[in-house]
Amino acid sequence: MKLVRYGETGREKPGLLDAGGKLRDLGAAIDDLGGNVLRPEGLAKLKALDPAKLLLVSGSPRLGVPVTGIGKIVAIGLNYSDHAAESNLPVPKEPIIFFKATSSLTGPNDPVTIPKGSEKSDWEVELAVVIGKPASYVSEAEALSHVAGYLICNDVSERAYQIERGGTWDKGKGCDSFCPLGPWLVTSDEIKDPQALDMWLDVNGDKAQRGNTRTMVFGVAHIVSYVSQFMSLQTGDVITTGTPPGVGMGMKPPRYLKPGDVMTLGIAGLGEQRQTCVAWKR
Amino acid sequence: MKLVRYGETGREKPGLLDAGGKLRDLGAAIDDLGGNVLRPEGLAKLKALDPAKLLLVSGSPRLGVPVTGIGKIVAIGLNYSDHAAESNLPVPKEPIIFFKATSSLTGPNDPVTIPKGSEKSDWEVELAVVIGKPASYVSEAEALSHVAGYLICNDVSERAYQIERGGTWDKGKGCDSFCPLGPWLVTSDEIKDPQALDMWLDVNGDKAQRGNTRTMVFGVAHIVSYVSQFMSLQTGDVITTGTPPGVGMGMKPPRYLKPGDVMTLGIAGLGEQRQTCVAWKR
Repeated sequence: MKLVRYGETGREKPGLLDAGGKLRDLGAAIDDLGGNVLRPEGLAKLKALDPAKLLLVSGSPRLGVPVTGIGKIVAIGLNYSDHAAESNLPVPKEPIIFFKATSSLTGPNDPVTIPKGSEKSDWEVELAVVIGKPASYVSEAEALSHVAGYLICNDVSERAYQIERGGTWDKGKGCDSFCPLGPWLVTSDEIKDPQALDMWLDVNGDKAQRGNTRTMVFGVAHIVSYVSQFMSLQTGDVITTGTPPGVGMGMKPPRYLKPGDVMTLGIAGLGEQRQTCVAWKR
Repeated sequence: MKLVRYGETGREKPGLLDAGGKLRDLGAAIDDLGGNVLRPEGLAKLKALDPAKLLLVSGSPRLGVPVTGIGKIVAIGLNYSDHAAESNLPVPKEPIIFFKATSSLTGPNDPVTIPKGSEKSDWEVELAVVIGKPASYVSEAEALSHVAGYLICNDVSERAYQIERGGTWDKGKGCDSFCPLGPWLVTSDEIKDPQALDMWLDVNGDKAQRGNTRTMVFGVAHIVSYVSQFMSLQTGDVITTGTPPGVGMGMKPPRYLKPGDVMTLGIAGLGEQRQTCVAWKR
Protein backbone atom coordinates (compact mmCIF):
# COMPACT_ATOMS: atom_id res chain seq x y z
CA MET A 1 0.00 0.00 0.00
CA LYS A 2 0.92 3.60 -0.57
CA LEU A 3 -0.45 5.44 2.45
CA VAL A 4 -0.71 9.22 2.63
CA ARG A 5 -1.98 12.02 4.80
CA TYR A 6 -3.57 14.82 2.83
CA GLY A 7 -4.97 18.26 3.54
CA GLU A 8 -3.90 21.41 5.31
CA THR A 9 -1.00 21.35 7.78
CA GLY A 10 -2.23 20.08 11.11
CA ARG A 11 -5.55 18.92 9.66
CA GLU A 12 -4.38 16.04 7.48
CA LYS A 13 -6.67 13.09 6.80
CA PRO A 14 -5.58 9.51 6.08
CA GLY A 15 -5.73 8.16 2.56
CA LEU A 16 -4.23 5.69 0.16
CA LEU A 17 -3.28 5.58 -3.48
CA ASP A 18 -5.18 2.90 -5.36
CA ALA A 19 -3.67 0.75 -8.09
CA GLY A 20 -4.52 3.43 -10.62
CA GLY A 21 -2.76 6.10 -8.60
CA LYS A 22 -5.99 7.73 -7.46
CA LEU A 23 -6.26 9.15 -3.95
CA ARG A 24 -8.84 7.41 -1.77
CA ASP A 25 -10.12 8.50 1.63
CA LEU A 26 -9.34 6.20 4.58
CA GLY A 27 -11.33 8.32 7.05
CA ALA A 28 -14.11 5.74 7.36
CA ALA A 29 -11.62 3.06 8.38
CA ILE A 30 -9.15 4.89 10.64
CA ASP A 31 -8.79 8.21 12.43
CA ASP A 32 -5.23 8.79 11.30
CA LEU A 33 -2.03 7.03 10.18
CA GLY A 34 -0.29 6.54 13.49
CA GLY A 35 -0.11 4.38 16.57
CA ASN A 36 -1.62 0.92 16.35
CA VAL A 37 -2.63 1.45 12.71
CA LEU A 38 1.09 1.10 11.88
CA ARG A 39 1.48 -2.25 13.64
CA PRO A 40 1.28 -5.42 11.55
CA GLU A 41 -2.32 -6.08 12.67
CA GLY A 42 -3.36 -2.51 11.84
CA LEU A 43 -1.81 -2.59 8.39
CA ALA A 44 -3.36 -6.01 7.73
CA LYS A 45 -6.79 -4.50 8.37
CA LEU A 46 -6.12 -1.72 5.86
CA LYS A 47 -4.87 -4.21 3.31
CA ALA A 48 -8.11 -6.16 3.63
CA LEU A 49 -10.11 -3.13 2.48
CA ASP A 50 -11.23 -2.92 -1.13
CA PRO A 51 -9.78 0.39 -2.38
CA ALA A 52 -12.54 0.64 -5.02
CA LYS A 53 -15.06 1.00 -2.20
CA LEU A 54 -13.25 3.92 -0.58
CA LEU A 55 -14.35 7.45 -1.44
CA LEU A 56 -12.32 9.15 -4.13
CA VAL A 57 -10.68 12.40 -3.06
CA SER A 58 -11.21 15.17 -5.56
CA GLY A 59 -8.57 17.66 -6.64
CA SER A 60 -4.90 17.54 -5.73
CA PRO A 61 -4.68 18.31 -2.04
CA ARG A 62 -1.44 19.06 -0.28
CA LEU A 63 0.33 15.98 1.07
CA GLY A 64 1.54 16.04 4.67
CA VAL A 65 3.99 13.87 6.59
CA PRO A 66 2.54 10.39 5.88
CA VAL A 67 2.69 9.32 9.54
CA THR A 68 1.49 11.07 12.69
CA GLY A 69 2.75 10.67 16.23
CA ILE A 70 6.43 10.37 15.33
CA GLY A 71 8.20 10.05 18.68
CA LYS A 72 11.76 10.36 17.46
CA ILE A 73 13.73 10.66 14.25
CA VAL A 74 16.95 8.67 14.46
CA ALA A 75 19.44 9.45 11.71
CA ILE A 76 22.49 7.55 10.53
CA GLY A 77 25.57 9.49 9.44
CA LEU A 78 28.12 8.77 6.73
CA ASN A 79 26.41 5.53 5.70
CA TYR A 80 27.50 5.53 2.05
CA SER A 81 31.20 4.99 1.57
CA ASP A 82 31.43 7.41 -1.36
CA HIS A 83 29.60 10.13 0.62
CA ALA A 84 32.08 9.67 3.47
CA ALA A 85 34.86 10.18 0.93
CA GLU A 86 33.36 13.42 -0.43
CA SER A 87 33.03 14.63 3.18
CA ASN A 88 36.72 13.84 3.83
CA LEU A 89 35.72 11.56 6.69
CA PRO A 90 36.59 7.90 7.26
CA VAL A 91 33.95 5.21 6.77
CA PRO A 92 32.59 4.58 10.29
CA LYS A 93 33.33 1.28 12.02
CA GLU A 94 29.81 1.17 13.39
CA PRO A 95 26.74 3.29 12.58
CA ILE A 96 26.87 6.95 13.60
CA ILE A 97 23.63 7.94 15.31
CA PHE A 98 22.22 11.44 15.59
CA PHE A 99 18.73 12.83 15.99
CA LYS A 100 16.62 15.18 13.95
CA ALA A 101 14.14 17.27 15.97
CA THR A 102 10.52 16.24 15.45
CA SER A 103 9.80 19.96 15.01
CA SER A 104 11.72 19.78 11.72
CA LEU A 105 9.07 17.53 10.11
CA THR A 106 7.27 18.86 7.07
CA GLY A 107 5.32 17.59 4.08
CA PRO A 108 7.15 16.26 1.01
CA ASN A 109 6.37 19.27 -1.17
CA ASP A 110 6.22 22.02 1.43
CA PRO A 111 8.71 24.89 1.28
CA VAL A 112 12.04 24.50 3.07
CA THR A 113 12.97 27.55 5.10
CA ILE A 114 16.58 28.69 4.98
CA PRO A 115 17.31 29.58 8.63
CA LYS A 116 17.95 33.21 9.53
CA GLY A 117 21.49 34.05 8.50
CA SER A 118 22.21 30.57 7.17
CA GLU A 119 24.78 30.35 4.39
CA LYS A 120 25.40 26.59 4.27
CA SER A 121 22.04 24.82 3.97
CA ASP A 122 22.42 21.57 2.06
CA TRP A 123 20.40 18.60 0.82
CA GLU A 124 20.52 14.83 1.46
CA VAL A 125 18.16 12.35 -0.19
CA GLU A 126 17.72 9.35 2.12
CA LEU A 127 15.76 6.15 2.49
CA ALA A 128 13.81 6.28 5.75
CA VAL A 129 11.85 3.60 7.57
CA VAL A 130 8.89 3.85 9.91
CA ILE A 131 8.76 1.39 12.80
CA GLY A 132 5.63 -0.75 13.06
CA LYS A 133 6.15 -3.36 15.76
CA PRO A 134 8.23 -1.99 18.67
CA ALA A 135 11.85 -3.14 18.64
CA SER A 136 14.29 -3.57 21.50
CA TYR A 137 17.47 -5.65 21.17
CA VAL A 138 16.22 -7.24 17.97
CA SER A 139 18.53 -9.33 15.79
CA GLU A 140 19.42 -8.36 12.23
CA ALA A 141 17.43 -11.40 11.04
CA GLU A 142 14.21 -10.21 12.68
CA ALA A 143 14.77 -6.46 12.22
CA LEU A 144 12.85 -5.91 8.98
CA SER A 145 9.71 -7.47 10.47
CA HIS A 146 9.59 -4.41 12.73
CA VAL A 147 9.44 -2.00 9.77
CA ALA A 148 5.96 -0.80 8.79
CA GLY A 149 7.17 0.81 5.61
CA TYR A 150 9.58 2.98 3.71
CA LEU A 151 9.57 6.60 2.59
CA ILE A 152 11.81 9.35 1.29
CA CYS A 153 13.49 11.75 3.73
CA ASN A 154 15.33 14.87 2.65
CA ASP A 155 17.78 15.19 5.56
CA VAL A 156 18.29 18.92 5.07
CA SER A 157 21.41 20.06 6.91
CA GLU A 158 23.01 23.38 7.80
CA ARG A 159 26.71 22.59 7.53
CA ALA A 160 28.00 25.54 9.56
CA TYR A 161 25.62 24.71 12.42
CA GLN A 162 26.43 21.01 12.08
CA ILE A 163 30.21 21.22 11.94
CA GLU A 164 31.50 24.68 12.89
CA ARG A 165 29.43 25.58 15.94
CA GLY A 166 30.68 23.03 18.48
CA GLY A 167 29.08 19.91 19.87
CA THR A 168 27.12 17.31 17.98
CA TRP A 169 25.61 17.33 14.51
CA ASP A 170 22.12 17.79 16.00
CA LYS A 171 22.48 21.59 15.87
CA GLY A 172 22.48 21.62 12.09
CA LYS A 173 19.98 18.85 11.44
CA GLY A 174 16.87 19.91 13.31
CA CYS A 175 15.98 23.36 11.96
CA ASP A 176 12.28 23.88 11.19
CA SER A 177 11.25 22.34 7.83
CA PHE A 178 14.54 20.37 7.59
CA CYS A 179 12.80 16.98 7.50
CA PRO A 180 10.44 16.59 4.51
CA LEU A 181 8.99 13.07 4.60
CA GLY A 182 6.91 11.31 1.98
CA PRO A 183 5.02 11.56 -0.30
CA TRP A 184 3.85 8.07 0.67
CA LEU A 185 4.48 5.51 3.34
CA VAL A 186 5.05 2.45 1.16
CA THR A 187 4.35 -0.64 3.23
CA SER A 188 7.15 -3.18 3.57
CA ASP A 189 5.38 -5.85 1.51
CA GLU A 190 5.86 -3.66 -1.59
CA ILE A 191 9.62 -3.26 -1.15
CA LYS A 192 11.15 -6.60 -1.98
CA ASP A 193 14.73 -5.51 -1.31
CA PRO A 194 15.47 -2.22 0.47
CA GLN A 195 19.12 -2.57 -0.61
CA ALA A 196 18.43 -2.22 -4.33
CA LEU A 197 16.72 1.15 -4.69
CA ASP A 198 17.92 3.88 -7.04
CA MET A 199 17.85 7.36 -5.53
CA TRP A 200 18.45 10.85 -6.92
CA LEU A 201 18.26 14.53 -6.09
CA ASP A 202 18.43 17.56 -8.40
CA VAL A 203 18.71 21.25 -7.56
CA ASN A 204 17.01 23.57 -10.04
CA GLY A 205 17.05 20.64 -12.46
CA ASP A 206 20.83 20.22 -12.17
CA LYS A 207 21.99 16.74 -11.27
CA ALA A 208 23.23 16.62 -7.68
CA GLN A 209 22.88 13.19 -6.07
CA ARG A 210 22.76 9.81 -7.77
CA GLY A 211 23.00 6.60 -5.81
CA ASN A 212 21.58 3.26 -4.91
CA THR A 213 20.89 1.79 -1.50
CA ARG A 214 23.13 -1.16 -2.35
CA THR A 215 26.17 0.99 -1.53
CA MET A 216 25.12 1.58 2.07
CA VAL A 217 27.89 0.75 4.54
CA PHE A 218 25.31 -0.67 6.95
CA GLY A 219 22.06 -1.99 5.49
CA VAL A 220 18.59 -1.29 6.80
CA ALA A 221 18.28 -4.54 8.76
CA HIS A 222 21.63 -3.94 10.43
CA ILE A 223 20.68 -0.35 11.29
CA VAL A 224 17.31 -1.24 12.85
CA SER A 225 18.96 -3.99 14.90
CA TYR A 226 21.85 -1.73 15.88
CA VAL A 227 19.76 1.23 16.99
CA SER A 228 17.54 -1.11 19.01
CA GLN A 229 20.59 -2.06 21.13
CA PHE A 230 20.77 1.53 22.42
CA MET A 231 17.13 2.56 22.72
CA SER A 232 13.74 1.00 22.14
CA LEU A 233 12.17 1.77 18.80
CA GLN A 234 8.50 2.48 19.11
CA THR A 235 5.61 2.37 16.69
CA GLY A 236 5.82 5.49 14.52
CA ASP A 237 9.50 6.17 15.13
CA VAL A 238 11.48 7.07 12.02
CA ILE A 239 15.03 6.05 11.12
CA THR A 240 16.67 7.76 8.17
CA THR A 241 19.58 5.80 6.83
CA GLY A 242 22.13 8.18 5.34
CA THR A 243 22.79 9.80 2.00
CA PRO A 244 24.74 8.90 -1.16
CA PRO A 245 27.30 11.26 -2.77
CA GLY A 246 26.44 14.59 -4.34
CA VAL A 247 25.68 16.93 -1.45
CA GLY A 248 26.47 20.62 -1.85
CA MET A 249 29.24 20.56 0.74
CA GLY A 250 31.14 18.03 -1.37
CA MET A 251 31.07 20.07 -4.58
CA LYS A 252 34.10 22.03 -5.75
CA PRO A 253 33.42 24.80 -4.95
CA PRO A 254 30.67 23.94 -2.42
CA ARG A 255 27.14 24.87 -3.45
CA TYR A 256 24.54 25.74 -0.86
CA LEU A 257 20.82 26.43 -0.97
CA LYS A 258 19.39 29.90 -1.35
CA PRO A 259 15.81 31.18 -1.45
CA GLY A 260 14.17 30.26 -4.74
CA ASP A 261 16.17 27.07 -5.25
CA VAL A 262 14.06 24.00 -6.00
CA MET A 263 15.03 20.55 -4.77
CA THR A 264 13.50 17.54 -6.54
CA LEU A 265 14.29 14.08 -5.29
CA GLY A 266 13.09 10.53 -5.50
CA ILE A 267 13.68 6.89 -4.63
CA ALA A 268 12.53 3.99 -6.82
CA GLY A 269 9.05 2.89 -5.76
CA LEU A 270 8.71 5.59 -3.12
CA GLY A 271 7.66 8.54 -5.29
CA GLU A 272 9.13 12.01 -5.49
CA GLN A 273 9.44 15.17 -3.44
CA ARG A 274 9.76 18.79 -4.54
CA GLN A 275 10.68 21.64 -2.21
CA THR A 276 11.15 25.30 -2.95
CA CYS A 277 13.56 27.09 -0.61
CA VAL A 278 12.25 30.24 1.02
CA ALA A 279 13.88 32.91 3.14
CA TRP A 280 13.22 32.96 6.86
CA LYS A 281 10.76 35.58 8.00
CA ARG A 282 9.06 36.07 11.32
CA MET B 1 2.22 25.71 41.51
CA LYS B 2 3.70 22.25 41.85
CA LEU B 3 2.04 20.22 39.12
CA VAL B 4 2.23 16.44 38.94
CA ARG B 5 0.95 13.47 37.02
CA TYR B 6 0.14 10.50 39.23
CA GLY B 7 -0.93 6.92 38.74
CA GLU B 8 0.21 3.92 36.75
CA THR B 9 2.57 4.31 33.79
CA GLY B 10 0.58 5.37 30.75
CA ARG B 11 -2.54 6.11 32.82
CA GLU B 12 -1.36 9.13 34.79
CA LYS B 13 -3.85 11.77 35.90
CA PRO B 14 -3.10 15.46 36.45
CA GLY B 15 -2.78 16.84 39.95
CA LEU B 16 -1.17 19.52 42.06
CA LEU B 17 0.42 19.77 45.46
CA ASP B 18 -1.43 22.22 47.70
CA ALA B 19 0.28 24.57 50.14
CA GLY B 20 0.25 21.83 52.75
CA GLY B 21 1.94 19.39 50.38
CA LYS B 22 -1.22 17.35 49.85
CA LEU B 23 -1.95 15.87 46.45
CA ARG B 24 -5.09 17.24 44.80
CA ASP B 25 -6.83 15.94 41.68
CA LEU B 26 -6.93 18.29 38.67
CA GLY B 27 -9.03 15.91 36.58
CA ALA B 28 -12.13 18.08 36.82
CA ALA B 29 -10.24 21.07 35.37
CA ILE B 30 -8.03 19.54 32.67
CA ASP B 31 -7.56 16.27 30.82
CA ASP B 32 -3.82 16.17 31.27
CA LEU B 33 -0.73 18.34 31.80
CA GLY B 34 0.30 19.02 28.24
CA GLY B 35 -0.38 21.15 25.18
CA ASN B 36 -2.24 24.38 25.74
CA VAL B 37 -2.49 23.77 29.48
CA LEU B 38 1.23 24.62 29.64
CA ARG B 39 0.86 27.96 27.87
CA PRO B 40 0.64 31.10 30.00
CA GLU B 41 -3.15 31.27 29.58
CA GLY B 42 -3.55 27.62 30.53
CA LEU B 43 -1.40 27.94 33.63
CA ALA B 44 -3.24 31.13 34.62
CA LYS B 45 -6.51 29.18 34.62
CA LEU B 46 -5.02 26.54 36.91
CA LYS B 47 -3.65 29.21 39.21
CA ALA B 48 -7.12 30.73 39.51
CA LEU B 49 -8.46 27.48 40.99
CA ASP B 50 -8.84 27.16 44.76
CA PRO B 51 -6.79 24.08 45.67
CA ALA B 52 -8.93 23.49 48.74
CA LYS B 53 -11.88 22.80 46.46
CA LEU B 54 -10.05 20.11 44.48
CA LEU B 55 -10.52 16.48 45.51
CA LEU B 56 -7.83 15.10 47.77
CA VAL B 57 -6.01 12.07 46.34
CA SER B 58 -5.70 9.29 48.89
CA GLY B 59 -2.61 7.18 49.41
CA SER B 60 0.79 7.75 47.84
CA PRO B 61 0.41 6.99 44.16
CA ARG B 62 3.33 6.63 41.81
CA LEU B 63 4.42 9.89 40.19
CA GLY B 64 4.94 9.96 36.43
CA VAL B 65 6.69 12.39 34.14
CA PRO B 66 4.96 15.67 35.12
CA VAL B 67 4.28 16.69 31.52
CA THR B 68 2.77 14.76 28.63
CA GLY B 69 3.27 15.28 24.91
CA ILE B 70 6.98 16.08 25.13
CA GLY B 71 8.04 16.59 21.50
CA LYS B 72 11.76 16.74 22.05
CA ILE B 73 14.33 16.74 24.82
CA VAL B 74 17.18 19.12 24.05
CA ALA B 75 20.21 18.70 26.29
CA ILE B 76 23.17 21.00 26.89
CA GLY B 77 26.61 19.46 27.38
CA LEU B 78 29.52 20.55 29.58
CA ASN B 79 27.64 23.55 30.94
CA TYR B 80 29.37 23.72 34.32
CA SER B 81 33.00 24.74 34.11
CA ASP B 82 34.07 22.41 36.93
CA HIS B 83 32.28 19.45 35.28
CA ALA B 84 34.09 20.18 32.02
CA ALA B 85 37.33 20.06 33.99
CA GLU B 86 36.55 16.67 35.56
CA SER B 87 35.71 15.39 32.06
CA ASN B 88 39.09 16.64 30.75
CA LEU B 89 37.29 18.75 28.16
CA PRO B 90 37.55 22.48 27.48
CA VAL B 91 34.72 24.81 28.49
CA PRO B 92 32.67 25.23 25.30
CA LYS B 93 32.63 28.58 23.50
CA GLU B 94 28.93 28.22 22.80
CA PRO B 95 26.37 25.74 24.13
CA ILE B 96 26.78 22.10 23.06
CA ILE B 97 23.44 20.69 21.98
CA PHE B 98 22.45 17.05 21.92
CA PHE B 99 19.16 15.21 22.16
CA LYS B 100 17.79 12.62 24.52
CA ALA B 101 15.27 10.21 22.98
CA THR B 102 11.71 10.77 24.19
CA SER B 103 11.56 7.00 24.71
CA SER B 104 14.03 7.47 27.58
CA LEU B 105 11.46 9.38 29.67
CA THR B 106 10.44 7.86 32.99
CA GLY B 107 8.94 8.91 36.31
CA PRO B 108 11.12 10.50 38.99
CA ASN B 109 11.14 7.44 41.26
CA ASP B 110 10.86 4.67 38.69
CA PRO B 111 13.69 2.13 38.36
CA VAL B 112 16.56 2.94 35.98
CA THR B 113 17.47 0.00 33.77
CA ILE B 114 21.16 -0.66 33.20
CA PRO B 115 21.29 -1.50 29.46
CA LYS B 116 22.21 -5.03 28.41
CA GLY B 117 25.97 -5.40 28.77
CA SER B 118 26.47 -1.83 29.97
CA GLU B 119 29.46 -1.27 32.23
CA LYS B 120 29.60 2.54 32.28
CA SER B 121 26.17 3.88 33.22
CA ASP B 122 26.48 7.18 35.07
CA TRP B 123 24.36 9.87 36.69
CA GLU B 124 23.88 13.63 36.08
CA VAL B 125 21.57 15.81 38.18
CA GLU B 126 20.32 18.69 36.02
CA LEU B 127 17.93 21.61 36.04
CA ALA B 128 15.44 21.19 33.21
CA VAL B 129 12.84 23.58 31.84
CA VAL B 130 9.55 22.92 30.09
CA ILE B 131 8.58 25.30 27.30
CA GLY B 132 5.19 27.01 27.66
CA LYS B 133 4.88 29.64 24.95
CA PRO B 134 6.53 28.52 21.67
CA ALA B 135 9.91 30.14 21.04
CA SER B 136 11.70 30.85 17.78
CA TYR B 137 14.58 33.32 17.53
CA VAL B 138 13.79 34.77 20.95
CA SER B 139 16.17 37.14 22.67
CA GLU B 140 17.82 36.35 25.99
CA ALA B 141 15.72 39.11 27.57
CA GLU B 142 12.43 37.51 26.55
CA ALA B 143 13.53 33.88 26.84
CA LEU B 144 12.33 33.11 30.38
CA SER B 145 8.80 34.25 29.53
CA HIS B 146 8.65 31.16 27.27
CA VAL B 147 9.36 28.81 30.18
CA ALA B 148 6.30 27.15 31.77
CA GLY B 149 8.29 25.77 34.66
CA TYR B 150 11.27 23.94 36.05
CA LEU B 151 11.94 20.38 37.11
CA ILE B 152 14.71 17.96 37.93
CA CYS B 153 16.21 15.76 35.21
CA ASN B 154 18.60 12.91 35.88
CA ASP B 155 20.49 12.89 32.56
CA VAL B 156 21.55 9.24 32.91
CA SER B 157 24.41 8.49 30.50
CA GLU B 158 26.20 5.40 29.29
CA ARG B 159 29.77 6.65 28.89
CA ALA B 160 31.01 3.86 26.61
CA TYR B 161 28.07 4.34 24.26
CA GLN B 162 28.45 8.12 24.48
CA ILE B 163 32.18 8.40 23.90
CA GLU B 164 33.70 5.12 22.69
CA ARG B 165 31.22 3.92 20.08
CA GLY B 166 31.63 6.57 17.36
CA GLY B 167 29.42 9.43 16.35
CA THR B 168 27.55 11.80 18.60
CA TRP B 169 26.71 11.64 22.28
CA ASP B 170 23.10 10.71 21.47
CA LYS B 171 23.95 6.99 21.47
CA GLY B 172 24.68 7.02 25.19
CA LYS B 173 22.00 9.45 26.33
CA GLY B 174 18.75 7.98 25.05
CA CYS B 175 18.58 4.46 26.51
CA ASP B 176 15.20 3.50 27.95
CA SER B 177 14.63 4.91 31.46
CA PHE B 178 17.61 7.29 31.11
CA CYS B 179 15.50 10.44 31.55
CA PRO B 180 13.72 10.55 34.92
CA LEU B 181 11.84 13.86 35.16
CA GLY B 182 10.06 15.39 38.14
CA PRO B 183 8.67 14.89 40.74
CA TRP B 184 6.92 18.19 40.04
CA LEU B 185 6.70 20.79 37.33
CA VAL B 186 7.25 23.92 39.40
CA THR B 187 5.80 26.87 37.54
CA SER B 188 8.14 29.74 36.72
CA ASP B 189 6.45 32.18 39.11
CA GLU B 190 7.77 30.12 42.03
CA ILE B 191 11.40 30.20 40.89
CA LYS B 192 12.64 33.72 41.48
CA ASP B 193 16.14 33.09 40.15
CA PRO B 194 16.95 29.90 38.22
CA GLN B 195 20.64 30.73 38.61
CA ALA B 196 20.72 30.33 42.38
CA LEU B 197 19.55 26.77 43.01
CA ASP B 198 21.50 24.24 45.06
CA MET B 199 21.60 20.76 43.56
CA TRP B 200 22.89 17.40 44.76
CA LEU B 201 23.04 13.73 43.94
CA ASP B 202 24.02 10.77 46.13
CA VAL B 203 24.59 7.12 45.20
CA ASN B 204 23.70 4.64 47.94
CA GLY B 205 23.81 7.58 50.34
CA ASP B 206 27.38 8.49 49.36
CA LYS B 207 27.93 12.08 48.31
CA ALA B 208 28.45 12.32 44.55
CA GLN B 209 27.38 15.64 43.07
CA ARG B 210 27.13 18.99 44.80
CA GLY B 211 26.58 22.19 42.87
CA ASN B 212 24.59 25.32 42.29
CA THR B 213 23.09 26.64 39.08
CA ARG B 214 25.07 29.87 39.56
CA THR B 215 28.15 28.12 38.15
CA MET B 216 26.55 27.35 34.79
CA VAL B 217 28.68 28.50 31.86
CA PHE B 218 25.52 29.55 29.99
CA GLY B 219 22.46 30.48 32.06
CA VAL B 220 18.92 29.30 31.41
CA ALA B 221 17.85 32.46 29.57
CA HIS B 222 20.87 32.28 27.29
CA ILE B 223 20.24 28.59 26.58
CA VAL B 224 16.57 29.02 25.69
CA SER B 225 17.44 31.93 23.41
CA TYR B 226 20.37 30.06 21.87
CA VAL B 227 18.49 26.83 21.13
CA SER B 228 15.65 28.84 19.59
CA GLN B 229 18.11 30.16 16.95
CA PHE B 230 18.50 26.60 15.60
CA MET B 231 15.03 25.12 15.97
CA SER B 232 11.64 26.22 17.19
CA LEU B 233 10.82 25.30 20.75
CA GLN B 234 7.28 24.13 21.12
CA THR B 235 4.91 23.88 24.05
CA GLY B 236 5.92 20.84 26.09
CA ASP B 237 9.48 20.64 24.81
CA VAL B 238 12.10 20.04 27.49
CA ILE B 239 15.60 21.51 27.72
CA THR B 240 17.95 20.06 30.31
CA THR B 241 20.79 22.39 31.11
CA GLY B 242 23.87 20.39 32.06
CA THR B 243 25.34 18.90 35.21
CA PRO B 244 27.72 20.07 37.96
CA PRO B 245 30.80 18.07 39.02
CA GLY B 246 30.68 14.69 40.68
CA VAL B 247 29.71 12.23 37.96
CA GLY B 248 31.02 8.68 38.16
CA MET B 249 33.23 9.06 35.10
CA GLY B 250 35.16 11.85 36.87
CA MET B 251 35.93 9.86 40.02
CA LYS B 252 39.35 8.31 40.57
CA PRO B 253 38.88 5.48 39.87
CA PRO B 254 35.63 5.93 37.91
CA ARG B 255 32.51 4.58 39.58
CA TYR B 256 29.60 3.36 37.48
CA LEU B 257 26.09 2.20 38.29
CA LYS B 258 25.23 -1.44 38.88
CA PRO B 259 21.92 -3.16 39.63
CA GLY B 260 20.81 -2.42 43.18
CA ASP B 261 22.45 1.01 43.35
CA VAL B 262 20.14 3.79 44.51
CA MET B 263 20.42 7.33 43.15
CA THR B 264 18.86 10.11 45.23
CA LEU B 265 18.96 13.66 43.88
CA GLY B 266 17.37 17.02 44.35
CA ILE B 267 17.32 20.68 43.43
CA ALA B 268 16.23 23.44 45.84
CA GLY B 269 12.51 24.09 45.44
CA LEU B 270 12.03 21.32 42.90
CA GLY B 271 11.79 18.29 45.18
CA GLU B 272 13.71 15.04 45.07
CA GLN B 273 14.04 11.92 42.94
CA ARG B 274 15.01 8.39 43.95
CA GLN B 275 15.83 5.65 41.43
CA THR B 276 16.91 2.08 42.05
CA CYS B 277 19.05 0.60 39.28
CA VAL B 278 17.87 -2.71 37.88
CA ALA B 279 19.41 -5.18 35.46
CA TRP B 280 18.09 -5.35 31.93
CA LYS B 281 15.81 -8.30 31.26
CA ARG B 282 13.60 -9.06 28.32
